[in-house]
Amino acid sequence: MAFTHVVTFKWRESDFADSGIADALRDLVARFEGVRSYLCGSDIGLTPNAYDFAVVGTFDDRDSFIAYRDHPDHQRIVTEMIAPNLESRTVVQLEH
Amino acid sequence: MAFTHVVTFKWRESDFADSGIADALRDLVARFEGVRSYLCGSDIGLTPNAYDFAVVGTFDDRDSFIAYRDHPDHQRIVTEMIAPNLESRTVVQLEH
Repeated sequence: MAFTHVVTFKWRESDFADSGIADALRDLVARFEGVRSYLCGSDIGLTPNAYDFAVVGTFDDRDSFIAYRDHPDHQRIVTEMIAPNLESRTVVQLEH
Repeated sequence: MAFTHVVTFKWRESDFADSGIADALRDLVARFEGVRSYLCGSDIGLTPNAYDFAVVGTFDDRDSFIAYRDHPDHQRIVTEMIAPNLESRTVVQLEH
């Protein structure tokens, strides 16, 4: 069963330049097996009070997601690039 | 340019049965032009403090999204099925 990981992020500073995070995440997932699709990037500003950044990753299965989630290179992006700039984050995970 | 609408929802009651909302949204988008993919459903409970429900819809372009957003049948689902049960909601929209 496919597994989709949906995350929205709100940064502490709304003008935080997050393109480096998008690039780092894309480079990371390119090295993983089991990633069916991976979209990430900045909100375009159409909707008032939108969050700032999103990740939508679809994996072959739950184990493929967990391999990504727990990989040290992913954890390093979370710890060094995301967490210091994060005001809030929501996650929803679907199997389909 | 493709347009992806990412929404996460937290319900007032965490055990709210939201499958009727997923069915209503799927029936709705099946009638629209310009929808490339549309995934919605309930969080599976893997991650502590996850939100409860997500929608990820990819449209051919921003106008196709706006036609969906503003359609009376969509507004009826929002007003009658989602809003009465909603604690909080985040949205991020990407063009890619």
